[in-house]
Amino acid sequence: MKLNIDSPPTLIWLDDHIEIIEQTLLPAELKVIKLRNVEQVIDAIFRLAVRGAPAIGACGAYGIVVALNEGSPATVDEARAILDNDGERIGNARPTAVNLSWAVNRVCTYAKKGETVEDIHRLALESANAVFDEDRAACDAIGTFGSEELADYSVIMTHCNAGRLATTGIGTALGVIYGKARAGQEVEVYSSETRPLLQGARLTSWELSTAGIPVTVMPDSAGSSLLRTGRVHAVVVGADRIAANGDVANKVGTYTHALAAKAAGVPFYVAAPTSTLDALTATGEDIEIEQRIPEEIQRCGDKQTTPDGVGIWNPAFDVTPAELVTAIITEVGVLRPDYSESIRGALAKVATD
Amino acid sequence: MKLNIDSPPTLIWLDDHIEIIEQTLLPAELKVIKLRNVEQVIDAIFRLAVRGAPAIGACGAYGIVVALNEGSPATVDEARAILDNDGERIGNARPTAVNLSWAVNRVCTYAKKGETVEDIHRLALESANAVFDEDRAACDAIGTFGSEELADYSVIMTHCNAGRLATTGIGTALGVIYGKARAGQEVEVYSSETRPLLQGARLTSWELSTAGIPVTVMPDSAGSSLLRTGRVHAVVVGADRIAANGDVANKVGTYTHALAAKAAGVPFYVAAPTSTLDALTATGEDIEIEQRIPEEIQRCGDKQTTPDGVGIWNPAFDVTPAELVTAIITEVGVLRPDYSESIRGALAKVATD
Repeated sequence: MKLNIDSPPTLIWLDDHIEIIEQTLLPAELKVIKLRNVEQVIDAIFRLAVRGAPAIGACGAYGIVVALNEGSPATVDEARAILDNDGERIGNARPTAVNLSWAVNRVCTYAKKGETVEDIHRLALESANAVFDEDRAACDAIGTFGSEELADYSVIMTHCNAGRLATTGIGTALGVIYGKARAGQEVEVYSSETRPLLQGARLTSWELSTAGIPVTVMPDSAGSSLLRTGRVHAVVVGADRIAANGDVANKVGTYTHALAAKAAGVPFYVAAPTSTLDALTATGEDIEIEQRIPEEIQRCGDKQTTPDGVGIWNPAFDVTPAELVTAIITEVGVLRPDYSESIRGALAKVATD
Repeated sequence: MKLNIDSPPTLIWLDDHIEIIEQTLLPAELKVIKLRNVEQVIDAIFRLAVRGAPAIGACGAYGIVVALNEGSPATVDEARAILDNDGERIGNARPTAVNLSWAVNRVCTYAKKGETVEDIHRLALESANAVFDEDRAACDAIGTFGSEELADYSVIMTHCNAGRLATTGIGTALGVIYGKARAGQEVEVYSSETRPLLQGARLTSWELSTAGIPVTVMPDSAGSSLLRTGRVHAVVVGADRIAANGDVANKVGTYTHALAAKAAGVPFYVAAPTSTLDALTATGEDIEIEQRIPEEIQRCGDKQTTPDGVGIWNPAFDVTPAELVTAIITEVGVLRPDYSESIRGALAKVATD
């Protein structure tokens, strides 16, 4: 099956700037924008014009190259100061996904080895390209492992967007879907809308239908009764950060679906690259959960949806306890409980590769 | 505490027509509209301009009076034909709430006893007024029983709108909130948005904040992680139909919150008048779940939220199994498991009152 998932790319480096799909406009408008300075990079990440843990990792990585271009350092010391300052600014554009700070640190650390300004430029780009390429390859591997693991399941439910719009490749959760399609397996998808920014309604349904995969959108709150009908064979979601014990931080509502999947006896999978595994965070309780701005809840388009002056609680993520997770599909294989052990094993494997 | 919850009324009969708050415009605009013919009554119920099981029951009841006025029957047979035909049309404007067909049948059956056209008119209005008054009184009683049952709880989570905008009185779930406030108890509320029509964001937060009760709105999918924090003491929701075994049909997402409440060890209450109890429906599996139109998911205000051509699953309600319900607060007291027995007892009590 020929899948239409590459054009235009979600994120790409072109000569001296980043090009991204402006995802806030989808599905009404498919527009590509250029990021030419650090302000634009941070703004794009903050506004979720580019989003998804792996994609913002890659965007942050190239953002360091943008920072060096913009700063035009005359000396190695100036270049290193840019890496420190802009690295911190970009790395903090959003707090929950580990991939962003991980990718930015990786590029900065590698580039600092340069002994000339030119070297530093070259190494930064080389390192950012590596982040990009590795994520792409990881998505492909997740797709393959996932299609094997879920070979017997054809109706899959997902949440938010962990697809080609969230990564530099075919996605993580949707990588599993595309992996199944590539392997000639039947597959159809239920996607929850994912309030407040509707990544499921706007993005997952757009990219799956564009790729030719049947997709049905539902309100977030309908996931539990859908699962109860028995129509869905498995839930597959992405992850923004996975603690050392297997607790999963992902888009708010993921934990909700995990509870409903358990009640319905439906397996609940997390698909994520090993860069999402955070050995330094012991459990989900240690993960900072970003609170988003109230405006996301107060308005939708031109419509006021909540009165002024009312309190808003708008967490971007929630934590799904490890015991609700059937398995974690990574690029180095499928991790199963006990996660403390399997995650340690996966990280050791990556470190020695 | 003086609560501002009566002005303007959600629904009122004035001389020869129904006046309702046009709820689809809230919170941006507070507008009162008149319903002068059967088409307008059905349209208002279908569009959710008036909504909430008890309120559409009362609207349907007065709708029969409107039908008689509009039809201007010359003979008793003509009047009875109007009761049959328009009674069926109005009773079927929405399928899930039992109150609508219950109220319409009650008014039609009572009015048919009339031996003159004038009599039939008079009895229909008398019966519709009784539906209205009884619901108002039921809300007050629910508020009192609820404030006693939840006296130790101050932070309450709710879903959708089961408030004064959903009834002819102070509401059912929010009746409990107002009941607590009237009793001088501390109370604050978390309300989920309730996609797709956002009754929680638009209506619950509007009526609570207008009444002077602190309220915080959150995405539906954040309910589970909020409950997990331990900040919420109890969940209270309304009901559209309660089966003989205690299974509860209510706004889609109610079951989702019930699962999360159970996981968090938070009590989960349903507040509903006995008119919501349906002795003829054995379990939740026998309750028809209304599918709403796809447009509710495809657009929000001027914003396209889901691409054209994508499948939509948009159930208006879900069923919460009785075993997840801590208690059902009615106007004749608090019902507890075994619900088969306590519901039978409550209905027997009402029948003999």
